[in-house]
Amino acid sequence: MKELIRKVDEKLDEYMQITYPEDIFKAMKYTLMLPGKRLRPIMCLETARVLGADIELAFPAACALEMLHVQSLIHDDLPCMDNDDFRRGKPSNHKVFGEANAVLAGDALLTFAPQLIIEKSKGLSSEQIVRLLHEYTKFAGAYGLIAGQVVDIESEGGKLVKSPSETLDFIHINKTAVLFRLAVRMGAIIANASDEIIEKFDNFAKKFGLAFQIYDDIMDEISTFEELGKTVGKDKNSGKLTYVSLYGLDVAKNRFRVLIKECYAIIEEYDSSILKEILDKLNGRIGSI
Amino acid sequence: MKELIRKVDEKLDEYMQITYPEDIFKAMKYTLMLPGKRLRPIMCLETARVLGADIELAFPAACALEMLHVQSLIHDDLPCMDNDDFRRGKPSNHKVFGEANAVLAGDALLTFAPQLIIEKSKGLSSEQIVRLLHEYTKFAGAYGLIAGQVVDIESEGGKLVKSPSETLDFIHINKTAVLFRLAVRMGAIIANASDEIIEKFDNFAKKFGLAFQIYDDIMDEISTFEELGKTVGKDKNSGKLTYVSLYGLDVAKNRFRVLIKECYAIIEEYDSSILKEILDKLNGRIGSI
Repeated sequence: MKELIRKVDEKLDEYMQITYPEDIFKAMKYTLMLPGKRLRPIMCLETARVLGADIELAFPAACALEMLHVQSLIHDDLPCMDNDDFRRGKPSNHKVFGEANAVLAGDALLTFAPQLIIEKSKGLSSEQIVRLLHEYTKFAGAYGLIAGQVVDIESEGGKLVKSPSETLDFIHINKTAVLFRLAVRMGAIIANASDEIIEKFDNFAKKFGLAFQIYDDIMDEISTFEELGKTVGKDKNSGKLTYVSLYGLDVAKNRFRVLIKECYAIIEEYDSSILKEILDKLNGRIGSI
Repeated sequence: MKELIRKVDEKLDEYMQITYPEDIFKAMKYTLMLPGKRLRPIMCLETARVLGADIELAFPAACALEMLHVQSLIHDDLPCMDNDDFRRGKPSNHKVFGEANAVLAGDALLTFAPQLIIEKSKGLSSEQIVRLLHEYTKFAGAYGLIAGQVVDIESEGGKLVKSPSETLDFIHINKTAVLFRLAVRMGAIIANASDEIIEKFDNFAKKFGLAFQIYDDIMDEISTFEELGKTVGKDKNSGKLTYVSLYGLDVAKNRFRVLIKECYAIIEEYDSSILKEILDKLNGRIGSI
């Protein structure tokens, strides 16, 4: 796993060359190269590998996924969005490069990611590249990641078009699970997998993404509990729709455990120590609560 | 020409369906459907047509161009960029939908445009689609449009890495000419044109884009002169690098005329009343100065 993270970092550094005008490439590279878990690239690489592809073929798509992820983080952190001054422990992109450059760096990553897939996926057929780009554009845009963002922002403002549970599912599927789904789908396409196998891995990624988000919601709630010990009555006035606020902590924990179990079952037949390690880690963290 | 504009509007309306979550699709569609000259789509359609393609094949790429153009306008108008409250005579996107939605609507258009090319270009081969998307990603990103933006912003702030004339050329080629170049290149690819023909039309678009920008610079200067009659000493403190500020009005006008003449010469051999009409219009406007 560590070796794979190192390899992804190396490839990101290699693909993202600084050229004129340097400021935009530096802004793109800054957030991209902050140390991260590289979970999405690794899921893509590992899916391609267990389904029989040469892992080298999957690096462009894997790195494109990280670029897309980082793009969403850069725009998310903007003052007009979440207004976060820090990201991965460092000043966020707009704090370092200014807001205009942060907007443009995000835009540039959003087009550089598919450009990378086109230019570096040497061993893939044109049909495969079109399929990869189709998945990329669908999942990255208003039918995927951005839809999740918009509904999340609206729900924070108290605007719900659908029921709370439907809204929450929509946000989780589109904001969190979406890039895991894209990761395994692209990995499977690179391995020329059948539609049936693609859907199987998609299902794994959907469940993993939901579990990942529920874990996040539980952690949010628990750190709120801890804060409550100090600052009574501070929480819940954000009114954010989360799995815990909607269903309660116990239901959330149970749902998490069921999802993780289903994830293990789906990939059981494949020889993937990496995917199992990812599940183990997430599962282990919740076990200590 | 009018008929073609109407047809582009019709296709944009058809392609851009409003679905859940409606707010993001409405924001995307709002600026997209403001009446415009649709110059880039028309150049793409007309290039495809004169080079022998069925014009219907070119509508997805043509509309993708307008989406990309509109994306750049939406992000350009943001408070952290040009801070423009109006666009095409109407309140700009962030004034109507808020800044967060305007950022996301731009992002969504940037991925919807290539998605459209993939999904709607029925009669094209996978190789052609990959080529179209390669051109799109190169010209839309940090190697094209965004590079032009960044250098333009920096030059306004007085930061020049290259000489003023090199910087100005870079901005004009990448900020203005780039989408005309993309338009004719995509049109030519759809028509399965040879590399030689692609470069010929690219050259046309480069010259047209430069002339277009010089015209803009001249207009800027002239309206400044008019203002001077009222508010003496107001101009030039913006310090913006333009063709007129760098070379003077006479040189600018001469350069414009030479470029337009070269444009006519390049397309002379083709039976294109539309491209000639576009040149006539631009040329006619400067003739009255």
